[in-house]
Amino acid sequence: MTTNLTSIVLLSGGIDSATTLAIAKARGDRVFALSFDYGQRHHWELNAATRIAESLGVERHLVQTADLRAIGGSALTSDDIDVPRGRPLGDAHVIPVTYVPARNLIFLSLALAWAEVLGATYILIGANAVDYSGYPDCRPEFISAFEKTANLATKVGVESGNIRVEAPLIHLSKAEIIKTGVSLGIDYSLTLSCYDPDRDGRACGECDSCRIRRRGFVEAGIADPTRYVNRG
Amino acid sequence: MTTNLTSIVLLSGGIDSATTLAIAKARGDRVFALSFDYGQRHHWELNAATRIAESLGVERHLVQTADLRAIGGSALTSDDIDVPRGRPLGDAHVIPVTYVPARNLIFLSLALAWAEVLGATYILIGANAVDYSGYPDCRPEFISAFEKTANLATKVGVESGNIRVEAPLIHLSKAEIIKTGVSLGIDYSLTLSCYDPDRDGRACGECDSCRIRRRGFVEAGIADPTRYVNRG
Repeated sequence: MTTNLTSIVLLSGGIDSATTLAIAKARGDRVFALSFDYGQRHHWELNAATRIAESLGVERHLVQTADLRAIGGSALTSDDIDVPRGRPLGDAHVIPVTYVPARNLIFLSLALAWAEVLGATYILIGANAVDYSGYPDCRPEFISAFEKTANLATKVGVESGNIRVEAPLIHLSKAEIIKTGVSLGIDYSLTLSCYDPDRDGRACGECDSCRIRRRGFVEAGIADPTRYVNRG
Repeated sequence: MTTNLTSIVLLSGGIDSATTLAIAKARGDRVFALSFDYGQRHHWELNAATRIAESLGVERHLVQTADLRAIGGSALTSDDIDVPRGRPLGDAHVIPVTYVPARNLIFLSLALAWAEVLGATYILIGANAVDYSGYPDCRPEFISAFEKTANLATKVGVESGNIRVEAPLIHLSKAEIIKTGVSLGIDYSLTLSCYDPDRDGRACGECDSCRIRRRGFVEAGIADPTRYVNRG
């Protein structure tokens, strides 16, 4: 099956973006993967992104540099703010310190630039608004507003109005995402969700992202292939 | 006079952004200036930006790196596309090869991230839709859509809805901009508009940006302080 679509998929190295990439591939898109070296604490995730891109197969995997550490303001881009560990999940009304100011907007904007150069009209992002961590830039209203802006901001948008921004996971729970990915053949042992892995890329098991991931595998009834530090 | 506003001004080193910075200073804003090292052909403009920031006085001048040369697709970010010289001005319906895909969207998104960290609610950009070069991201409808998106994309936007994006020059001609700047005391000899200056920062005089600038000084009836290559 092929859709004759050319897509850019934002690929962080975690479960959601890997699943999004697999969805685009499964429908037959010609896929370009875009990752960001943005000064993130969990820089190791770029290794995971590379392995996923190779495993699922993409036209090209570009790692774009954008130094968000120069801006700071997040536990993920500043050494002065600790990553919370072991706190209860579920209060999505409080935006946590792992929020990175304007990150998805910046990433989507850079993806849009690349899309325009490649002639891609679809940009896919693994945002989801269910088992998420309270991030404003993972909500449907943000995605929709960005798509409108993208069609006003660019030559291709003004000339065609055809830029589409899709978040196929936005209404799925983490368990549903994992089940979808497994059905598409993803090897989730290649992915990394942890905000603060050790130097060998083993997950801490206790940050919000690890806890949401762990709970997702439990709820999906699927064995968790993650290498956790505290499991040896 | 002071407004008690904290603003971020996008500062390229040209006439428009310098004038925008002077407007923010004149109304009493606490101003942070943001420039971009994005792989531009006219990298020399960053020297001009630094001189303008020093001349007009800012709280801080940050030069942010964003490698748009890795994406390419523009005469300003690719050595494979020449900067047009000596062509007639005035056809703003044709988007020229000096258009950089999604550039203003990327720059505004990074400015938004910094604004959020600094507690600034105003972002000012020197876009103008009159004597411009046909760029889609210099139009009022783009600025307006971006402002709406910014308030959905960020913690500060969701919590306050107070992010404002201003383009105070948007309806001014280049001559009106120059007259405004001169009345505010700007030394335009510090600025650089040229897309392809020589290694000493002298303007070519023949690219679209030089020609719009030259015509602006003529129409304003103000002596042009620019150092042009072909004037020796």
